[in-house]
Amino acid sequence: MASPSGPKGSISYRDAGVDIDAGDDLVERIKPFAKMTRIPEVLADVGGFAGLCAVPKDVEDPVLVSGTDGVGTKLKVAFETGAHDTIGSDLVGMCVNDVITTGARPLFFLDYFGTGKLDVGTAERVVRGIAEACRESGCALLGGETAELPGMYAPGEYDLAGFAVGVVARSKIVDGKRVAAGDKVVGLRSSGLHSNGYSLARRVLFDEMKLAPGDKPAGLEGRTVGEALMAPTRLYARHVQAVLSAGVDVRAMSHITGGGLPGNLPRVLPDGLGVRLGARWKRPAILELVAERVEEHELRRVFNLGVGYVFVVTAEEEERTNEALRALGEEPIALGEIVAMPPETDFEARVVFP
Amino acid sequence: MASPSGPKGSISYRDAGVDIDAGDDLVERIKPFAKMTRIPEVLADVGGFAGLCAVPKDVEDPVLVSGTDGVGTKLKVAFETGAHDTIGSDLVGMCVNDVITTGARPLFFLDYFGTGKLDVGTAERVVRGIAEACRESGCALLGGETAELPGMYAPGEYDLAGFAVGVVARSKIVDGKRVAAGDKVVGLRSSGLHSNGYSLARRVLFDEMKLAPGDKPAGLEGRTVGEALMAPTRLYARHVQAVLSAGVDVRAMSHITGGGLPGNLPRVLPDGLGVRLGARWKRPAILELVAERVEEHELRRVFNLGVGYVFVVTAEEEERTNEALRALGEEPIALGEIVAMPPETDFEARVVFP
Repeated sequence: MASPSGPKGSISYRDAGVDIDAGDDLVERIKPFAKMTRIPEVLADVGGFAGLCAVPKDVEDPVLVSGTDGVGTKLKVAFETGAHDTIGSDLVGMCVNDVITTGARPLFFLDYFGTGKLDVGTAERVVRGIAEACRESGCALLGGETAELPGMYAPGEYDLAGFAVGVVARSKIVDGKRVAAGDKVVGLRSSGLHSNGYSLARRVLFDEMKLAPGDKPAGLEGRTVGEALMAPTRLYARHVQAVLSAGVDVRAMSHITGGGLPGNLPRVLPDGLGVRLGARWKRPAILELVAERVEEHELRRVFNLGVGYVFVVTAEEEERTNEALRALGEEPIALGEIVAMPPETDFEARVVFP
Repeated sequence: MASPSGPKGSISYRDAGVDIDAGDDLVERIKPFAKMTRIPEVLADVGGFAGLCAVPKDVEDPVLVSGTDGVGTKLKVAFETGAHDTIGSDLVGMCVNDVITTGARPLFFLDYFGTGKLDVGTAERVVRGIAEACRESGCALLGGETAELPGMYAPGEYDLAGFAVGVVARSKIVDGKRVAAGDKVVGLRSSGLHSNGYSLARRVLFDEMKLAPGDKPAGLEGRTVGEALMAPTRLYARHVQAVLSAGVDVRAMSHITGGGLPGNLPRVLPDGLGVRLGARWKRPAILELVAERVEEHELRRVFNLGVGYVFVVTAEEEERTNEALRALGEEPIALGEIVAMPPETDFEARVVFP
């Protein structure tokens, strides 16, 4: 549609596929979501271009801890099933679960939503999910960007990136340096695959096994494949705060993300130490289904295997850790213990399965 | 390729399109870039899962300022021209130029790089550009995520999101509240279109005018269309620091991004005030070309028109502001002045063109 008053054949931004009004509409719709996440540190009445958040005064010698992540091709399952309400929780979980491994308390979060043609309703559902997960994690949704990029994404698709900042007193940073042989490894269960390995899971379930998202194969206990795959990434910020508040001197924490247990546990251990896993725990039903077509070694280095987050504590403090977690309704998994290993042991070989 | 030791017909992550080794290779390649951006506050030896950065001790009652942005479909021009070296500078500019409008000093930056199939060489060039822009802006590249999402992006394409955090003393926040009629508006030139309006510019130049990225139309003074479009977003952090260090009591600052002058100047002005633009400045050649097919009103609300960043200062401090900027080799533009307006004036009508 040429504008009547412009140059001959003039083109508008809307003609070119960018709808500023839709963007403004979305901004208005998500304001209340951001507001519900507000923490006392947020300066709400300033910042035309950016979000402002004070450094908490009760944190001595504060260190900021920051991480960014996406949710991978779990998005594809969201597109196929229309489950846009919880993918935001995945985004927050992927970022915040990383930040809290240092002992940091989540402070604020920002999101990036990129799409070809903005569907305000879908974007609103995604951002609402982000805000709800921020609130559960105790952090403010301080800002975000919704980008309409005509021709960059297939119709109905979008990508998400998240960015989390937390804060910890310098003397209270959990960095794994004091981990010692004999320390105990306590795990928290995951809800399923969380947000890793979906390209492999989708390949196996949809392409090889020819399942559809609405199918209910026997192993899934009445759930559809789509429902099992879309189970939101668990948010562990409350669990970490509970254990730290109980006074446990946590020596290391690990978020079991891409790379699985062998890829993530050694990231926070000193050289010469590894983990001997003792327990066999119940693996998620959806994982058992995927396992029918993926060899065990590959399964271990791609998926979380049912353990989403790990604490390393001294043997003396293991029970106090478990109690703090049980008070939240958790059933902590006694995964195993820290053992000495030759310093030249391969990275992933530092996690020994039973 | 089925694995020989797995279940019959077993599938690997690599079979499913995700190459962990390529990701690891990239991580090794970009480590030196991140290192070159390190600032004293960065805690470099901790943080397996996240980046750590202390709050600067010389900032009293510190407030964190954060923003996120992308670079829009300027990416498409990068794909078409192979100019992957400077798009990272655009990403940093889009985020950091927002953060500094509050008077904040940039502290750290994180990037998200999403692609269908990771091309390590391209990603390395993009991240190097990000790191160089971080260094020029005085902030640390504290982390990043490279996500390989098979089937989400067209071959050779990627999306970028950036996240910047800065810090400012609470008493030194620049928030526009003290702007008054008679204050002066000083502009810094942009390098071209920066990173906004590319869907419209590409539609006009490539689809309507049938130009190719390698063409050199008369108006572009010997540059190709691709070169003119890829001119990197200017980084204004040094300019802001120079003006603040000169002791100027800056009353407001604005980053001229999506929405142009009418969309961005009023964002930092109190109700009842607007800007009367007096100067006519030289518009970028590429903009003049686009203007042949876009009406003036639309041009103004989509593009920066050649002004990338704006200071509002008292009339008494205008010359000192200009001097500080000239010391950096700038030729500041005397854009106009702040004028009283009825409070009910439409948002964009608060910027009056000559």
